[in-house]
Formats: sequence, structure tokens, C-alpha cells
Amino acid sequence: MSKFWSPFVKDLVPYIPGEQPKLSKLVKLNTNENPYGPSPRAVAAMQAELGETLRLYPDPSGDRLKRAVADYYGVRPEQVFVGNGSDEVLAHAFHGLFQHREPLLFPDISYSFYPVYCGLYDIDFRAIPLNDDFQIDVADYAQPNGGIIFPNPNAPTGCLLGLGAIERLLESNSDSVVLIDEAYIDFGGESAIALVDRYANLLVTQTLSKSRSLAGLRVGLAVGHPDLIEALERIKNSFNSYPLDRIAIAGAAAAFEDREHFERTRRQVIDSRETVTAAMEALGFEVLPSSANFIFARHPQRDASEIAAKLREQGVIVRHFKTARIDQFLRITIGTPEQNQVLLDSLRQLLG
Amino acid sequence: MSKFWSPFVKDLVPYIPGEQPKLSKLVKLNTNENPYGPSPRAVAAMQAELGETLRLYPDPSGDRLKRAVADYYGVRPEQVFVGNGSDEVLAHAFHGLFQHREPLLFPDISYSFYPVYCGLYDIDFRAIPLNDDFQIDVADYAQPNGGIIFPNPNAPTGCLLGLGAIERLLESNSDSVVLIDEAYIDFGGESAIALVDRYANLLVTQTLSKSRSLAGLRVGLAVGHPDLIEALERIKNSFNSYPLDRIAIAGAAAAFEDREHFERTRRQVIDSRETVTAAMEALGFEVLPSSANFIFARHPQRDASEIAAKLREQGVIVRHFKTARIDQFLRITIGTPEQNQVLLDSLRQLLG
Repeated sequence: MSKFWSPFVKDLVPYIPGEQPKLSKLVKLNTNENPYGPSPRAVAAMQAELGETLRLYPDPSGDRLKRAVADYYGVRPEQVFVGNGSDEVLAHAFHGLFQHREPLLFPDISYSFYPVYCGLYDIDFRAIPLNDDFQIDVADYAQPNGGIIFPNPNAPTGCLLGLGAIERLLESNSDSVVLIDEAYIDFGGESAIALVDRYANLLVTQTLSKSRSLAGLRVGLAVGHPDLIEALERIKNSFNSYPLDRIAIAGAAAAFEDREHFERTRRQVIDSRETVTAAMEALGFEVLPSSANFIFARHPQRDASEIAAKLREQGVIVRHFKTARIDQFLRITIGTPEQNQVLLDSLRQLLG
Repeated sequence: MSKFWSPFVKDLVPYIPGEQPKLSKLVKLNTNENPYGPSPRAVAAMQAELGETLRLYPDPSGDRLKRAVADYYGVRPEQVFVGNGSDEVLAHAFHGLFQHREPLLFPDISYSFYPVYCGLYDIDFRAIPLNDDFQIDVADYAQPNGGIIFPNPNAPTGCLLGLGAIERLLESNSDSVVLIDEAYIDFGGESAIALVDRYANLLVTQTLSKSRSLAGLRVGLAVGHPDLIEALERIKNSFNSYPLDRIAIAGAAAAFEDREHFERTRRQVIDSRETVTAAMEALGFEVLPSSANFIFARHPQRDASEIAAKLREQGVIVRHFKTARIDQFLRITIGTPEQNQVLLDSLRQLLG
């Protein structure tokens, strides 16, 4: 604590991201990165930006990327917002859309950055418990609120909520923004972007860090009614005129244009997820039904933190949250077939 | 206005950056970019990041870049903060260090983003008039305040305040953070980073967009006492864990390591500024003494907006602010010798 700090700073409890180890030998299954590299077309587009023109500011509105996203989803560019990772997009959405008198609602087991944003922007919130099967029940959200947010598929559970349930939520909360955080949607769900033309209260965020294999580039986006996008643009233009650099705009746009690479790699991840799930179940794990690029699993006889520690000794990193209700689960990213085999062999050994 | 917006959003008056025209034929002297390209070593370092590893998140703390900055300035890495352009760094500083009971002080003629940040974070401010020579007089800041900020050299005037005056300000405001925004310092001033070990209330920000020729990459930094840096880190880690992508961290670090390219290009800009200043004065302009990569000039007989419009017709873009006290000035970025010649020829023609 310092006398120079703004008063709220001392009470901030920052988000703690998954470890980014500097050793490259590890089998890194802890931060839900894609095991496959980005689109070669995206790399070529970035390559074309490397050079003398880096002396010039980028397009402040990232129009090339907005058009690529709009084309991909069949929406208009003015329904698209882009930012420096979906975390920045989410931060602006919390700031610009969730400071209301009633509390923001989100699941008790969810992306742990949400309460951090509430601390940053002084937003009151209420955590709504997932049901006993770790699913979102939209009936539980029928209460006064200043907004609703959850990841779909949810993180860290991987469980998907169908568009029918999302529509019910949108209809019964027409005075609140419902933000669907689709970081993992491409691994098994249908995007709620299909609904944005019908619900003025719907905002959908996505990231290029997972299904587009560009975690290292930091690009995220939001799609929704132009009024919601305008709130995000106002915040952005009062915060940082140029959140996306020239290389990121070019690479992210090309990643959306390369549908073949995207379809092939996400299919490989989905196939591997089914293989790993079956093998884990054969080892006695309970695995929640996942629509993401990770699984959330617990073993009825073995302590999760002990399994995580032993995997770590063997060079395999997974994520364990010391959080009520889920402290016996492990969140395990789907890797390449070779990485998944190392994981399964290690588990077989330590459970045997 | 939308019922979904957080209440403060409707009153936000966003910053308006200088135009980024999509035509490449223009002589673009309006946003203070460097006329020379970035360091070839920086480009090579970025090149090395292009590929498969972009699937992985970057180092959330950007340690490689912090070390490069610390080495360059002879400070410790824990005295360095890095972010997505100095605008993001400034935003976090306003949020984390300037929300106090007394108003923030800054010059009436200054970087026009400062009042925008105050709107974003609900910070009361008082604009302190520059003196009649458009200089900062530190005696004018001897009043209760919750912080002081100004660019040095100031923008858009280009005028430098010496370290002696800055020390007097630091000494007489030991309970407030004094933030020196050194976007342009490398073109003619001595950095106040030399003072950070002696003044716990000093924070210095810089950008790689000007003297490092990387406006298109979006990297900025702050140097100060570790307590001030911790406030920025807390905000950053509650906002976006990974503000700098892999390519930006590598390119920015290498730009600091390549001292030869930096010294040579900034010297060329300084030499050109002196040439352009003399030529403008010969054309009858009054040119404020500049320590930046731009000049701020007015003509006693000709209207500034008219000059700007006529230059635009000839393909030369300069910046004109429709702001009290400075609406007869033009801010003109120093270009290559060829660009400067086009500017001077155009001025000669339209004044002749």
C-alpha cells in the first residue's frame, strides 16, 4: 500500500493466469492453448506487415479485421468490436455495460476474471450456483439484475448451454445485457452470434487464442447490436485509440479468412477430446461432458492436487483450482495425440 | 444513448486521434510518426516470433522487454512497467494513481487525451494555463493537487522543461505523483528517468511510437518507484493479463538493444527539425522552440486552418487544433528531407 495509490487499488485482487513456464520440454496442458499452430495464411499476412510501415500507427478501428469477422458471421461491421484479447473486450464490456444499480449475475463456477473486473469497476455481483451436475439452469437467473454473463461452453467445466436456453434468458431479461463469452464455442457449440439480429440485449465475445491458435497475438472481439458496440467503442476511444497493432490486425483477419485450416484443426481437437475422455473414463475418472478444448475431470479415489503434483513431476502441467466445489477436479487441455498419450501414460502409471 | 449503457458512458467525450488516411501518396506530417523505419534488429526479432509458437500465450509480464528497458536506463526491472502503447500505460496510471480528493493538474495546452482519461475514471482536474510564451511555469502548480501530469517536451508545443524545474516540482509536491510523459524526450531532452531513484513520487512514461519508429506495434512503458509500478501492475492484472503479444515484446526489446539505429535516426530527425525551423522562419512563421519530432508554428498574416486546408489540397497533411489560444498554430511532424522539401515548397507557393 502506498499513499500515492488511488483508494480502490489496495483492495484489488488481480486475476492469476495459468503458469507460462519458460521450459519448452514440458507437456503444457494448463492454459487451453491450441496444440496446432496458426493458419499459414495468417502467418503470411503478418509477415507482410513486418518492415518499414511499422513506423506508422495502425488503423485505429481495425476495419480489415471487423470486415473479416462480419463476413465470417454474416453480420455488419458496425456490429463488431475488436480488442487486445477478449480479456480487454470483456473489461470494456464490464466498464461500459455492467455498472448498474442491480447486481451482475454469473455462475459461481466460471471464468475467475469476472469478479476481478467487478473489483476494478466497482460493480456489485451475485454468484449463481451451478446445479448439482455443474450445469447452468437459466431459471436461477430469474431475479433483478444489471446484467448476466457466463462463458459458453462454461469454463472450467466445459459444459455447453444450448441456444434455446439462451433465448429464454434473453427474452426474460430484456432490460439487461446478456453477455455470452464464447472463448471455446468452436469446439462443440453453436455461436449465439446467430441471435444478435433478434436480441438487442445480446453481446457475444470471442477470442482468437483458442480455436484460431493465436494466443500469442492477443486478439478478441465482440458481436452485438450497434448500440452495445458503440458503448465499447466509446470506452476504447477514451482508453487507447489503437489497441491492435498492424501485425495483429492483419494476422487475425487472415485467420478468419482461412476456413480450411480452422475447420481441420478444430476437428482434430474435438476428435482428440473424445479419445482422451474415453481413456480417462477407463481409468476411473468422472469427466464432465465437454464442448471445449479441455476436459474437467475428477477421480473418485485420488486427490486432485496430488495428481496434479505427480503429473508435474513427470513434466505434464494441468490446471487445478483450489476453489470450493471444484477442488477435486483437474482442468486438462487437449493436446496433440502425442501429448495426450504422455498424459494418459503418466496417469496410468501414477494410478496403477 | 442506450438503457444498457453504464451511466457514465453517455457523457464520455472520446479522444480523437490524428487522421490515418488510407491513401499512401500523401505526405503525412500529422501524427508525429518517425520518417525512418524501425531497427532492422527489431524486425529480425519479430520475424523470429512469426510461426507455430504464436499458439502459446506470451509472457504475461513481458520480462524480456522490462530487462531491455532496465538495461538501457540503468534501473532495475521492478522499476519498469510495459503496456500496449503509452496510452494504455497512461490510462492505468490515471486509474491507479490519480483518483484522489484534490484535482489532478495539467497544462491547459497539452495532450488532449488527459481530460478524456479524467472522464473515464471520474477524476476531477484543473487545467493550468501555460504562460504567454507557451511554457510551463512550475510555480503555477503550487496548489493542492491529487497529482500532476504533463508531456515533456510538451505536446503540441514541443517546448521542453529542464530537469531542474522538474526537481523543484517533485520536491514541492512530495505527497502527489508527478507523471512526466516523455513521448518525445529522445528528440532533444534529458529523461527524468535519471531522477527516479531519488523521488518516490516520480513516474516517467515513454512510447516506442516516436523515436523507436514502432507506432504500428503499440508498445509503451513507465519507469518509477516499485510502489508506483505495483499500482500499475495491479490494474493491469485486473484488466488484461497479457497486454503485449509475443511479437511486440520481442520487437520492442530489440529496438532498445539497437542503440546505433536509434542514435542515428533520432539525430537525422533533430537535424531536419533545425533545417525546417529555419526555413519556416524565413517564410515568416513564428516557430516555438521545439525539442520534439514536430514543430508548432503560426504565421502572423495567414489563418492556420486555411493553410492546413491548402496543404491538404497539395497532398500534405499537418495537424490543426481548433482549440482556444492555439487555433492559429499548426503542428507539423518532421519528415524525411524529401517530405520536408515538399512541405516547404507547398508553403512557399501558397504564401507567395
